[in-house]
Formats: sequence, C-alpha cells, structure tokens
Amino acid sequence: MSLLLSRRDLDFLLYEWLDVEALTKRPYFADHSRETFDGALELAEEVATEHFATHNKRADASEPTFDGARVTMIPEVKRALDVLAGTGLLGAAMPAEVGGGQLPGVVARACFSWFQAANVGTAAYPFLTLGNANLLLAHASPELVERYVPAMLDGRFHGTMCLSEPQAGSSLSDIVTRAEPHADGTYRVFGNKMWISAGEHELGENIVHLVLAKIPGGPPGVKGISLFVVPKFLPDGARNDVVLAGLNHKMGYRGTTNTMLNFGEAGDGAVGFLVGEPHHGLSYMFHMMNEARVGVGGGATALGYTGYLKSLEYARNRPQGRLAKDPTTPQVPIIEHADVRRMLLAQKSYVEGALALNLYCAKLLDDERTAESADERERAHLLLDVLTPIAKSWPSQWCLEANNLAIQVHGGYGYTREYDVEQHYRDNRLNPIHEGTHGIQGLDLLGRKVVMQGGAGLALLGSVLGSTVERAAARGGEAADLGAALGAAVTRVGEVTATLWGSGDPAVALANASIYLEAVGHVVVAWLWLEQFLAAADGADPFYEGKRQAARYFYRYELPKTAPQFDLLASLDRTTLDVAPEWF
Amino acid sequence: MSLLLSRRDLDFLLYEWLDVEALTKRPYFADHSRETFDGALELAEEVATEHFATHNKRADASEPTFDGARVTMIPEVKRALDVLAGTGLLGAAMPAEVGGGQLPGVVARACFSWFQAANVGTAAYPFLTLGNANLLLAHASPELVERYVPAMLDGRFHGTMCLSEPQAGSSLSDIVTRAEPHADGTYRVFGNKMWISAGEHELGENIVHLVLAKIPGGPPGVKGISLFVVPKFLPDGARNDVVLAGLNHKMGYRGTTNTMLNFGEAGDGAVGFLVGEPHHGLSYMFHMMNEARVGVGGGATALGYTGYLKSLEYARNRPQGRLAKDPTTPQVPIIEHADVRRMLLAQKSYVEGALALNLYCAKLLDDERTAESADERERAHLLLDVLTPIAKSWPSQWCLEANNLAIQVHGGYGYTREYDVEQHYRDNRLNPIHEGTHGIQGLDLLGRKVVMQGGAGLALLGSVLGSTVERAAARGGEAADLGAALGAAVTRVGEVTATLWGSGDPAVALANASIYLEAVGHVVVAWLWLEQFLAAADGADPFYEGKRQAARYFYRYELPKTAPQFDLLASLDRTTLDVAPEWF
Repeated sequence: MSLLLSRRDLDFLLYEWLDVEALTKRPYFADHSRETFDGALELAEEVATEHFATHNKRADASEPTFDGARVTMIPEVKRALDVLAGTGLLGAAMPAEVGGGQLPGVVARACFSWFQAANVGTAAYPFLTLGNANLLLAHASPELVERYVPAMLDGRFHGTMCLSEPQAGSSLSDIVTRAEPHADGTYRVFGNKMWISAGEHELGENIVHLVLAKIPGGPPGVKGISLFVVPKFLPDGARNDVVLAGLNHKMGYRGTTNTMLNFGEAGDGAVGFLVGEPHHGLSYMFHMMNEARVGVGGGATALGYTGYLKSLEYARNRPQGRLAKDPTTPQVPIIEHADVRRMLLAQKSYVEGALALNLYCAKLLDDERTAESADERERAHLLLDVLTPIAKSWPSQWCLEANNLAIQVHGGYGYTREYDVEQHYRDNRLNPIHEGTHGIQGLDLLGRKVVMQGGAGLALLGSVLGSTVERAAARGGEAADLGAALGAAVTRVGEVTATLWGSGDPAVALANASIYLEAVGHVVVAWLWLEQFLAAADGADPFYEGKRQAARYFYRYELPKTAPQFDLLASLDRTTLDVAPEWF
Repeated sequence: MSLLLSRRDLDFLLYEWLDVEALTKRPYFADHSRETFDGALELAEEVATEHFATHNKRADASEPTFDGARVTMIPEVKRALDVLAGTGLLGAAMPAEVGGGQLPGVVARACFSWFQAANVGTAAYPFLTLGNANLLLAHASPELVERYVPAMLDGRFHGTMCLSEPQAGSSLSDIVTRAEPHADGTYRVFGNKMWISAGEHELGENIVHLVLAKIPGGPPGVKGISLFVVPKFLPDGARNDVVLAGLNHKMGYRGTTNTMLNFGEAGDGAVGFLVGEPHHGLSYMFHMMNEARVGVGGGATALGYTGYLKSLEYARNRPQGRLAKDPTTPQVPIIEHADVRRMLLAQKSYVEGALALNLYCAKLLDDERTAESADERERAHLLLDVLTPIAKSWPSQWCLEANNLAIQVHGGYGYTREYDVEQHYRDNRLNPIHEGTHGIQGLDLLGRKVVMQGGAGLALLGSVLGSTVERAAARGGEAADLGAALGAAVTRVGEVTATLWGSGDPAVALANASIYLEAVGHVVVAWLWLEQFLAAADGADPFYEGKRQAARYFYRYELPKTAPQFDLLASLDRTTLDVAPEWF
C-alpha cells in the first residue's frame, strides 16, 4: 500500500461520493470515462512514487545554491519534471485548443495530489507553471497564449507569479514596480520582486514571469496595478533584464527555489508584454486566485496525508509498552494504545476531511466552467468564492497539526531526519503564509465573502449544509444525531455573522476574523464528515467503519471546539483593539 | 532591551509576585540577599547574551559531526561553556559542602532560562550535567560524589542520563542493558543506549554517564532496574568501554549531540559503579524527575519567550498595510493590526504564563527542601508532584505554539533561516517528546498524580487555586469576575476527575488522559494569570497594563477552550477504544 496517499480513499471520494463519472455526460468531458480517469490516477501515482518521492529527502538536504551566476540543484528534479512532461499530465485538464486533454479539473487535482504528497518542492514547479498558463489562457491575447502556453504544457517553459515586493507582501497596493510604455507597444519593467518561487533555475528553456506592476499615471493603490508577461528569454532569444538577486533559505520547501528578482537593473528596463487591459492586473490575478488557493490547500492536504500514512505504518509496527502491567508479557504495537489511536484518528479526520474539501472545491471549479445551466455555473462560482479562504487555510492549519501528530506518534524517531515526517512538518509550515496568510484569509471570508451580494454566498453555503442535515435526518439514527449537531452549528454561524456585522463597526466585526475563519472552517469540515458518513453508511468493510469512526471523532472532539470560538465572536470582543503597543 | 527574556518580567515574578527575597530568612539561604540574586541574574544575562546567543545560529547550521573516531563541533560551544564555568554559576544553587553557592533554586532557574533562551543546544550540556550532579548528591556514595560532583561544578566533567534503548523508549521496563557484579565490587555493563544527549563530545576531561541497567537475577520490569555511574574515563585514566555508535540527526536542537552509545562492546563490559542500592535505579531517577521536567518546561518557555520578543520587535518595526483604506496614506507598523495583536497577546499569555508556572515550580523545589516546617515541605512536595506533568507539558505545547505564531507574525521572513524564529520552532518541537512524551505526562497526571494518597494532591491543588479565587473575590470588580471563572473551572476539574475514576474502568478513565492534561494545564495557567492580575492590579505603568490585558486575553480566548474538553471527558468517551486497527 502506498504511503503517499490512499487510492482507496480517492476512489471513494471521487466515485462513491462526488460521482465524478457523471461529469462525462457534459459535452466538454465527453471523451472521458471512468477508464481515462483511472488511467490518469494510476499514471500520477506511478510517476510520483518512482520519480518524485525518490528524491524528496535529497532535495531537502541539498537545497539549490546560487554562486552569483547560476542556480544549481540536484539533477533528479529536472529528470522527474521531464518524466512528468512526457506523460502528458501537465496539460491533462487544459482545453483541447491549446493541446490539452480536457480531463475534469477534479480528477487532475487528485492526480496532482500524488506529486505534492511525494515531493512538494519539485511539484511546485509545474504547479506554478500551470497556474500561470491558466491565467494567460483566461486573459492574455491569442498571440501571447500561442507563444507561451503550449510550451508550458510541454514542460519546455516554466512559469512564475511575481506579486510581492520587499516592502509589499500582504499589502499589494504598495507595490512600486513600474512598467513604462514603449513605442513598440511593449513595456519596460523596473523593480524588485520578493518571495518569487521558481524565479530562477535551469529546468527548461525559458521562464515566463507574470509580473504585477504600475503604469505611471494610473490610479493609486490596487486600481493602478497591471499585469505583464516578462520572459527570461525574449522571443528573439535575447536574455531579458531579469536578474536573480539572491535565494531565500527556508525552513522547508527547500527544493523550490525562492528568489529575489530584479527587473530592469541595467537601466533600460525588462521587456514586458501587457496581459489584457491596463490597470486590471489584480483582478486577473484574483480571477485565478480561487484555483491557486485551492491548490495550496491541496498541497497542505497531501503533506498531511502522507505523514498520516507514515505514522500509521509506524504505529502498526513499533512495539512499545503493554496494555496489562505484567512486564513478562510481550510489548504491543503502539497502535494498541488509546493515546496513539487518538493521534491517528485526529490525523485521519484532518487529512481525509481536507481531501474531501479540496476535491469538492476542485469540482466546483469544473462546475463553474462546464455545468449545463448558467444558474448552476453561477451557483458553483458563488459557493467556491465563499469556500476558497477555508479551502486554503483549513488544511494549512490542520494538516500541519496532522504532521505535528505524525512526529509525536514516531516519538524520538519522528524528530530525526532519518524519518520523513519532520520534513513534512517543515514543508507544511509554509502553507499558512504564502498565497495569502491565515489572517488575510480571515479578512477575505468575514470581510468580503460572507457579505458580498447581500450575504448570498453565506446563504448558499447554509442551504448546501442544510440539505445534508435534512438527508441525515431522513436517515435517522446516528446520522440524524450528527446532522442535528451540524444543524445547530450552521445556525450559530448565521447568528454570529449577523451579530458581528450588526455591531455597525467594521473594526469590531473584523477584530477576530481569524477565529471566525477557524470556526466556520471546522463547521464546513464537520459537514464534509457528515457527507462521508452518509456515503459510507451502508458499507460493511473496515474502510467504511473507519470513515464512520473518523466522522464520530470529528463530531466528538473537533466540532465542539467551535462553541467557545462562536461565544467569543458573539461577545464582540475588543481585547485586541483595546491594547496599546507599549503594553507589550 | 534584550530580545532573549524580559528582565522586567523576571523581577516582577520573582520579587513582586513570588517574594523570593523572603527565602533569605531561611538559614540555608542566609548568605543571600536581593543583591546576590540580582548579581546572578545580571551575570547570566550578560554571559548568555555575549557568549551563547552569538553562536546559536551557527551551531544549528553546522551541527556536530562524527567521523567514526571523533565528534567535531564548532569551537564556540566550548568557549561559551568555559566562560560559564568561570562564572561559578554552575554550582550556584548547590550545597556549600560540594563547593556550591546555596543560591535559591528558583533564582538559579531564572538564571538558567537566559542560557536556554540564548542557545538551548549549548545550554543542554550544563543542564544535563547539573541534573546528573544533583542525582549523585542525593543517592550516590560520598566517594562517588567526591570523585565526580566537584569536577562537574567546575565544568571539567560533563554528565548524561542514559535511560532509553532502541527497543525501550517510553517503556523503561523493557530495557535489556545488563550489569554484572565484578569481584572488586564494581559492575560490568553491556548494552546499547539510544537518544543520549551529550553522549559524546570533547568539551571537557570526562563524561559521567548515569546508566539504567539490570543486574541479572533481579525482579522483572522496572523493579529490577539499577543505576550506575559509567565514566568515559576511569579513575586511573583508562578509557572505559563506552563507544559512540552514531549521532542522531535532528530537526532542531542541533547543537546538542544526540547519540547511540554501546557499552561493553569489546566483550569485557564497561566498568560501572553502582549508585545506592541495587534495583532502586528507577526510583532514584524519578526522584530527580520533577526537577528535570520542570527544567525541560523551562527550556520550552525560554524558546517561546525569545520568539515572542523577536516577533514583537518585528511587529513594531515592519510597515505593512493601513487601518484606513486610502492607499495614499503611509503604511502602519503591523502591530496596529488586530490580528497581529491577537498573535502577540496569545504569545504573551503563553510565555509569561509558562514562565510563572516554571518559577512557581522551581520555588516549590526550594520549599520541599528548605521550608521551615515538615508540613510545609511535605505540602510543597505534594503540590510539585501534581504540577510537574503540567510544568513539563504545558510550555512544551503552548510555547511551541507561541513560536508558530512568532513565525506567522514575521510572514515570509519568519519562514527563512535569515531570521531566528524558525529555529526556535524547530528546537522547541523536541520538548513534547523528550523527558517523557506528552502522552506519558497525561498518564502520569491522571493515572498517578491525581489519585495518589487518596487524591490529596488534587485536593491540595484545588485549595491553592481556591484561595486565589477568594482573594480575587475579596478584591471585587474585574478580579472577582476572573476569579469566578477560575472557580467554576476548578470545580469542573474535581467533578470530571471523579466521573472518570467513578467509571470503574481504568481503560475508559485514561483513554483521553492527554486531553485531561491539556485541560487541567489551561486551568492551572489561568490561575497563574489571575495571580499575575492581582499582583499587577494596582500598577499604573504600561507593564502592569500589559499583564492585566494578557490575563484578560487568557480568560476570554483560552480558558473557555477547556469547556468542550471537560465535556468530552465527562462523557466517558470511548472513541479511541472502540476502533479496530484495520479501520485506519
């Protein structure tokens, strides 16, 4: 059995729960079938296992280096990416017109999880490249698409997203990189970008930087931000003025170069090609943000999942202690100890809950593009908008906690670099930071998503969760009990949200936005566990028993944690407002 | 201001809250005064700042190596330890008869915290040596004490504790290292020890290993364990048969060598000297366990504390975003954002709460040895027994969480090795594992400490907390409100403990011992925050405002987390019992 992900669980979620086979009835996916889905999943597992997992530790121990001229990294990274490119999986979910395979995104997301579980550092290169290609497809001119996208799907070109600057991380309105119009219709870009993953390497023929910059004379703040393609090599083969200023040395995720890039350092500016219209750059970026954030949540999930499987394997095989006190009896495997089982159940509930969330959101991405009616597409878009901050942050928090528990199950061994789990923990610690910090996700959920369109998104979420509660009630018994607990929590979300915004003071309403994010996230994952409980309700084999027990765990140990969080929020707490900096 | 610890906070806790000056009235401490205390604290801060903090990052980046013959480490470690030895601080709290200074242990603990905050990897060498010396003082023959203890206090000899073996970590009854009696009254030791910190190095003239081993023919299990001194170099200067089999490579805490040691590999056995009586080894070790575990909690606290101060400094100086939306206004320091303040208040409440717990327990160690009446000494001993699992585990959990938040406050910078906080997080992750895992502490608290002597320990803890509640009630106002919340929580602890043990089934009672540990830990720290609130109640300057606000934070955000934990415990939950291994 794989220690990366559980194919059995993927099959359960994709086929028994989400019924992704039904997608093949849509014209866009008409060429697909259960067989093509299974083929892609098997291929991804095989390549991830044989080419990605095999250099995960070495990529961590031998991180990329920069000698002032070139970036050097272990050769296994390029070999793995070349194998991946050869499979056709890179373009699997892309439209046929750019050479893609029109595989449903939810299946592609499941495939990609194998690479993230096996080696998140190497998987980041294609992850960024595909995000970049998607954005170009959606917003760039046919000419730019033609020039860059097919080469990216072939694995010859790679991509980046250049948003942050040293003085502007979470606050993108403060970027100062500027793009000056040039007579030939291109732009000249000047500025410094920070935290650019995959910003420099020699893994392919070119690097396509997508760069946020301001055209002089535009509006202040985010409304003056435009988006540019700034390739490392220009169409004529000349080297563009994009210079690596240095690599950041990270706690984990070490296989991915993380860079400071200087644009236009030599004086004439780096040549940039405008994407779409001037001053719409941030909205283009945000248009792809849901998918990118769901993908980050998927990476966090994959790291949590593999750590869970590894600690489970360890717990089954490590003899230590005994249930009876007689020291002359043999030691038992530690999975026999209640506290170890608690740590395994907690991990199981986090990682399988997060995977359900991740695939559910990936299917919404399919639905917003390919569902038959405009109503359905709009509904999927709205629901995804509300769920995205949770899909990004919940796995980043709780699958990191799963990795923490995976270390603990291993005892001292888990703290050593001879085992894998300490690396997963270090790798996963990035996820609450990049692609919008935890705090930013909280503000996005409470400050934007639940109030947009007069609260339509939150109402829709409530009705989706409510319909599961109804199904559970109809089934009766234990399902109904879990449903009743979920129903009460959903009601509480609505009440607390109304109380917060009823305060009339945005500072008060948003003071504990992170707590709101965490509480609502737990309610959403409780819903996904009720969904899984129902999908597994009639199954007799141990897999279904495990699903039901993990659901029970979540309702007994996890969902109740939200009660004091909602109490705090409902009190319109001002503790963080009524404190002066000098009191610290 | 130091970014290691707050001297102001230490003074508050030691002098304004614990009134450690009163200790000087006891004959044992009669040579001391506020001046000698302050002198020791200043000296510790100075040496920690100038000689320990300065190589903390380098010791992490260049961990010790073993070439099969010798262990090599950066020279700064020995230089720092030599400076420390020269100060006399090593023996500061030891009895005069072995050359010690009879400083109160609580002051020595505060001094030692400076070294742990500055460089926990280097500080581990003297930490282990002093624990070793203390154990010899308490249980070894005058001859062994004379031979080893003064040299350890001089910094010439170092010490270890050799408990674990590859097949016996948490389950010490399963150790198989054996010690055969020799005609000359010494023993010959054969076996393999695992996870031995400071097990090999060239920092001094000798290493004094304290080794648990079984004398053939003794009782099975823990009752057949004896304790031996096995020095690296024998009294005649010959090399003893203690061989380094390898170094463990850890996620953090890298400056401390962590070793696998083979005893008696060459065939004739390593020469060992029995400590005390045969078969009492574990009880000797446990006799020192309270102090060692309080020390581990102190290390976790120190790492949390320095991370807090560094993230506070960062938050005061990093401009990012603004409170109003107008992008033309200047950015504000991130300490102005509510979510950052929440993360700072959380850290403050964790690290200052943990420091109060740590010093309170250190004072109990003084009291159990030097309080005037036998009653007081017995009372201190009993209270310390109950508090020790919390003093070890609570800071290990929550000051690690503080380090997690310190990274988050730094954003991307916190994830890089250019800043300190990622190392603190990695270093601190060891603390829930060594010196008894989190799960072992839970079993110790719920399975032993709260039931021993007919529940006398828990009753005593309840009365100590209850008297603070009474003082708070007498004061009225906000103090009384906090006291009422604490009083209700204390009542809940008693009820839940009775329910658990009233189940009549130890497996059920102990199934969630870790959750019990966490909940009771939060109640104890809530008590320490009420104590600090009361001690700060009349202060007008920002320091006291900060203490009161952190107390409010703890009562609003933290103590309520215990309600669902107690509910779960009171339900006699069987989730972790009623699950089969094949369900995972």
